Amino acid sequence: MKTITSIESNENFSNNVQAWQLKNMIGETVTIHGNVYKIRKMHGFAFVLLRSGGEILQCVYEETRTDFPLEKLTEECCIKAAVFVKEEPRSRRGFDLQLLHVQILSLPARHSPVVINQKTVNASLETLLNYRPITLRNQREAAIFKIQEALADGIRRFLKEQHFTEIHTPKIVSEGAEGGTNIFHLKYFEQDAFLAQSPQFYKQMMVGVFERVFEIGPVFRAEKHDTSRHLNEYTSVDFEMGFIEDFQELMAMETGMLRSAMASVKEQCPEEAALLGVRIPEITEIPCLRFQEAKELLQKEGCSQNNPMDLDPEEEKKLCRLIREKTGSEFVFVTHYPSAKRPFYAMNDPQNPEETLSFDLLFRGMEVTTGGQRIHSYETQVEKMRQKGLNPEDFSSYLMIHQCGMPPHGGLGLGLERLTSRLLEQDNVRRACLFPRDIHRLTP
Amino acid sequence: MKTITSIESNENFSNNVQAWQLKNMIGETVTIHGNVYKIRKMHGFAFVLLRSGGEILQCVYEETRTDFPLEKLTEECCIKAAVFVKEEPRSRRGFDLQLLHVQILSLPARHSPVVINQKTVNASLETLLNYRPITLRNQREAAIFKIQEALADGIRRFLKEQHFTEIHTPKIVSEGAEGGTNIFHLKYFEQDAFLAQSPQFYKQMMVGVFERVFEIGPVFRAEKHDTSRHLNEYTSVDFEMGFIEDFQELMAMETGMLRSAMASVKEQCPEEAALLGVRIPEITEIPCLRFQEAKELLQKEGCSQNNPMDLDPEEEKKLCRLIREKTGSEFVFVTHYPSAKRPFYAMNDPQNPEETLSFDLLFRGMEVTTGGQRIHSYETQVEKMRQKGLNPEDFSSYLMIHQCGMPPHGGLGLGLERLTSRLLEQDNVRRACLFPRDIHRLTP
Repeated sequence: MKTITSIESNENFSNNVQAWQLKNMIGETVTIHGNVYKIRKMHGFAFVLLRSGGEILQCVYEETRTDFPLEKLTEECCIKAAVFVKEEPRSRRGFDLQLLHVQILSLPARHSPVVINQKTVNASLETLLNYRPITLRNQREAAIFKIQEALADGIRRFLKEQHFTEIHTPKIVSEGAEGGTNIFHLKYFEQDAFLAQSPQFYKQMMVGVFERVFEIGPVFRAEKHDTSRHLNEYTSVDFEMGFIEDFQELMAMETGMLRSAMASVKEQCPEEAALLGVRIPEITEIPCLRFQEAKELLQKEGCSQNNPMDLDPEEEKKLCRLIREKTGSEFVFVTHYPSAKRPFYAMNDPQNPEETLSFDLLFRGMEVTTGGQRIHSYETQVEKMRQKGLNPEDFSSYLMIHQCGMPPHGGLGLGLERLTSRLLEQDNVRRACLFPRDIHRLTP
Repeated sequence: MKTITSIESNENFSNNVQAWQLKNMIGETVTIHGNVYKIRKMHGFAFVLLRSGGEILQCVYEETRTDFPLEKLTEECCIKAAVFVKEEPRSRRGFDLQLLHVQILSLPARHSPVVINQKTVNASLETLLNYRPITLRNQREAAIFKIQEALADGIRRFLKEQHFTEIHTPKIVSEGAEGGTNIFHLKYFEQDAFLAQSPQFYKQMMVGVFERVFEIGPVFRAEKHDTSRHLNEYTSVDFEMGFIEDFQELMAMETGMLRSAMASVKEQCPEEAALLGVRIPEITEIPCLRFQEAKELLQKEGCSQNNPMDLDPEEEKKLCRLIREKTGSEFVFVTHYPSAKRPFYAMNDPQNPEETLSFDLLFRGMEVTTGGQRIHSYETQVEKMRQKGLNPEDFSSYLMIHQCGMPPHGGLGLGLERLTSRLLEQDNVRRACLFPRDIHRLTP
């Protein structure tokens, strides 16, 4: 019987050198592979840029040396190539790759519908997204998602260090957590079901088990807004923690989490950050003001008060600008949102039941997080449900935890795409989502 | 204006010592917190077990020393307690916690509907799952999900080391990847949509960008099977890699990934593994046989051949037993499944188009992975779609990648709950899912 041995100790598949191994191969002739990203013809030679292992490798084609006609290479064809790794101190990587032999593995059936190998993809957002499977091959487009990965890595590493347990909770649910009409319905065999707007109930349940939990996963909002800020499906970073002394502990935890996320971008993605010109914020502390204070500040600055219960997008922008001018911080916490605008599980401020022990975090002009302390007493929770016109019987499995003993607890939800998008100062959050879903877009 | 500083440097919230910090606090009086898990009355004193930070802490209550009446403590009440951390070499942790003061933070409104603080929850699977928010508080139930977390951590760590990029792909899609009728429908505003059966199309698209990608996220299968092996929503570990030399490279990668997953359980969860009596397999190499060989072997052993195109659950069990007897391995790869039973994107074996360059991995009697090489040529893919009765126009955004140049590539999907369940030798995969979804169950 044949056996398969683990890749690390496997001689069978190690013919090809991976892009990240090349720096240790100077002076050697090795086989590499990649998609031809770009061919740049010069006098007497050519640069052949290969997309390999998510990097761009520059190879040098010389007729006298390369045993293959240049005309046979087309953009986006896939090749294997024998190259000599020549030391070259002037090159960014410290070496040049001299093409010796080329073997074509596959040829594209057509040209790319959009030019993808210039500095930026010169197309409307609509076109960029319509051809997403191809336009993501552009170096800048791909860099966005390496940075997003680094943000999520930094978040996960921090939360694990803080003894949070990572969980996976169901997305098909029998009740929405956030209320309202922005929920997707589906037929689940003979039952009516919904897509989870957040893992809220489940992460609270798990506080009773592990005390501190988090999840990084999809959530679904059937919002009909067609704006540059909204996605109908997005990746939510949710954490929830028990035995808090005060809801400000949640904000301190988030501050640490964001420090770690930004450090991770610096560490893992220096090239991508440079390519995109990312300004990575230094987070030492984050200013914090009450919702009512924020409203008064905005009124003084001449903002019309259309919505006394919330901050509208223009107010968020203006508030961020004011805070940056005053403190230098590009983040600001706004606390004590009105009870009327927060969900039924939000804990009211005992000193003023019109306000909740809750917060939003704004970053560069936009809300990226909503969080707060939750009600842990059964009686209080049932009463608040009734006040909000909800029937506690519809939430019987959720209320089990309140009945059977819950500590003071709270948590937050952070939109990964929004965080990425604000970090990169994009004009539209769709640019920070691989395959965005909006009211009109269900493909690719 | 107030400011929030990061939790690590924050003095405001550091009154409570976390469970994992106690080992460094011997000889000190500190404040801890937790849910009262169990009260064990002895002669003249009592043990009060606290669930704190996901661990069970044993505290000693003595009337002469503890400034609080024992009768006021009830199971699952939440407390803060001042304790003296006394060195005790006979204790597993090296210390005892002597209760000094107790402060009750919250009292449960009712007793647990199921006894949760015995060694095991003595209830039917139905009851266990109906009261999941509470029954997960049992130490053994919780341990299952620490082990699951460790498996996912080991997988993620390995894939990152192998330069895979972690991605997040949409779960609301316009086309199913796996075909068949087991797909959930939903109304997406004015369009018809589906829940993704797998991230198949998207991870293939991303091979064109990052070469190696993975995702750990939910997938949805509307299978009407009500068996101990099926979940209608589960967590799928998917990877996909480009420029493979041979589909066996995928199996070698999976072998390494599983080694890392098992090492992670050993390293992160020694106590949980001991509590559950987990037999952690040593993976050095995995035997591998062709589907037809497997069928012949099973026929020789007297299995009736009901389904010539697939292995049924009884055959999977029997095959695993035979392989274990022959080789000692509890894993076995079965390769070259019939083309008729594999999806349209599976690459046929050029030596025999009736078979595909594909594999399943069986572990302790059950399939836990399906994988294989995919078609990368546009013409071949369109032709196979037509053979399978599919209209290529329905897959136009997927086919963009084949048109615009794709390398030889392949990947796999691994069910995280199945992997956990087989590792723990459970009788039902639902036990390895926090909040399972099956044909009847949509709550909790």
